[in-house]
Amino acid sequence: MRTIIECVPNISEGRDGAAIEEVAAAVRGVAGVRLLDVSSDPAHNRSVLTFVGDAPALRAGVRALFAAALARIDLRRHAGEHPRMGAVDVVPFIPIRGASMEDCVALSREAGAEIAERFGVPVYLYEEAASAETRRNLAEIRKGQFEGFAEKMRDPRWAPDFGPRQPHPSAGVVAVGARPYLIAYNINLATADLAIADRIAKAIRHLSGGFRYVKAMGVSLADRGIVQVSINMTNFRKTPLHRVFECVRSEAARHGVAVVGSEIVGLTPAEALFAAAEHYLRLEGFTPEQVLETKLLEE
Amino acid sequence: MRTIIECVPNISEGRDGAAIEEVAAAVRGVAGVRLLDVSSDPAHNRSVLTFVGDAPALRAGVRALFAAALARIDLRRHAGEHPRMGAVDVVPFIPIRGASMEDCVALSREAGAEIAERFGVPVYLYEEAASAETRRNLAEIRKGQFEGFAEKMRDPRWAPDFGPRQPHPSAGVVAVGARPYLIAYNINLATADLAIADRIAKAIRHLSGGFRYVKAMGVSLADRGIVQVSINMTNFRKTPLHRVFECVRSEAARHGVAVVGSEIVGLTPAEALFAAAEHYLRLEGFTPEQVLETKLLEE
Repeated sequence: MRTIIECVPNISEGRDGAAIEEVAAAVRGVAGVRLLDVSSDPAHNRSVLTFVGDAPALRAGVRALFAAALARIDLRRHAGEHPRMGAVDVVPFIPIRGASMEDCVALSREAGAEIAERFGVPVYLYEEAASAETRRNLAEIRKGQFEGFAEKMRDPRWAPDFGPRQPHPSAGVVAVGARPYLIAYNINLATADLAIADRIAKAIRHLSGGFRYVKAMGVSLADRGIVQVSINMTNFRKTPLHRVFECVRSEAARHGVAVVGSEIVGLTPAEALFAAAEHYLRLEGFTPEQVLETKLLEE
Repeated sequence: MRTIIECVPNISEGRDGAAIEEVAAAVRGVAGVRLLDVSSDPAHNRSVLTFVGDAPALRAGVRALFAAALARIDLRRHAGEHPRMGAVDVVPFIPIRGASMEDCVALSREAGAEIAERFGVPVYLYEEAASAETRRNLAEIRKGQFEGFAEKMRDPRWAPDFGPRQPHPSAGVVAVGARPYLIAYNINLATADLAIADRIAKAIRHLSGGFRYVKAMGVSLADRGIVQVSINMTNFRKTPLHRVFECVRSEAARHGVAVVGSEIVGLTPAEALFAAAEHYLRLEGFTPEQVLETKLLEE
């Protein structure tokens, strides 16, 4: 698998196990697609599927996903804590290896046009694939949610990028886009003082002057009696883990506090860890091609 | 590929490209085997093949290798700088993932018995698979080389583990065994003083009191005007890269010398780099299952 693009669609069903499995099975059945994970949240009434493949395989996977999801999910009967606007709510494409962000933007457009044409679902392109700055932010697109979209779409500024000017009766609308891989990364501090975690979060996050691709906040880990800087690394290639780790370590030391450890929540591309090894071991001329497993993935 | 064992046989042919390609093609043609690399050294008149698979696939791969190599290589007409005792000189099995050293020892025995039976080539088990301490070291087994083996084998202490008590007329004998993955790792120092590299090599190597799984020597990099501690990491799980790197850094600092960088020569298992990232980022609860590519290799 020379080209690996990840697709992480969110569907508006997190309670009906049979329906979720039906959608998962539809994706799993597509040649060239590897379904890696399905996570459902009953409170949100929402599931996240993670699958990978190259561009043509993912287009087929997204078609299969929509066919199955539209047959089983009716937003007119949907309730959950998480805001939503579609039966398939959002479809992000994420470059992992052998594919660029531009490839994923192109894939978003192709898949978006196809979804609109085949299923009559209006499509909004978002993040890196957005057709306007105002559509970059998914939360902005989703405002009004399923119930408010017929009204919202009358505004010419909210004409969809593809498909009809009204929401699909049962499936609403969908956002399709491209974004970098997001790593959920936490750094734990040897103190119970939340104010210190908050100050460090403020120091490292983009919003308040920190690293461009870092979102962060302080969190109390009551059971361990410590605090944590909870981080979303929104572009680990441009803002790598080790740089953020060292910055947090330095800021914590200024408060006389040690870093207990850090943790990666969920999955990470191998590249993010190779970069840390490369940095600390000062590796010269390292390429991922030197990793045995990389060679095994190339066929 | 849940189970990955690596097989790195050395054959006594490094000049005749057609013969080498024939042997490589035989291995490549075996289902379940992935041939990753073929490196030939004309001066040594020797080639190293690297392929991976699970145990049954590797047994089939080794059968195919022997059939092709014995048809093309005649040691009675072989000369080269590297000591050798067989047309297929040595066959090591190396656990990479989903297989233990014990699995590779068992595989050595099975493959060894099969080679002796099918091809009439005497087999010596070595390293982790050795039937006696005196046979652990490959250099000890190889002493006398092809030309001396008929004589050497008359000594009961050198009866083979499998096969006849005399060498195969054209193919000699072979060593089959199991060993950990060897990483060739060099650390470059900001000095031209070879004595410093030598002293540090001495400090870290097993032979003179250093780490158990480290072989090391000082080397001059004349073109760069610096020196290098050239290292063989013979068991990166028990003596990891970062521990050796930090030790070299500390020893170099004692001489007022900085570490310029380090380099991995050839291939490394991803695990060796994950371990470095885990160490420096102080990762809590990390498992290779969190790496996206690891999931892709599991099928």
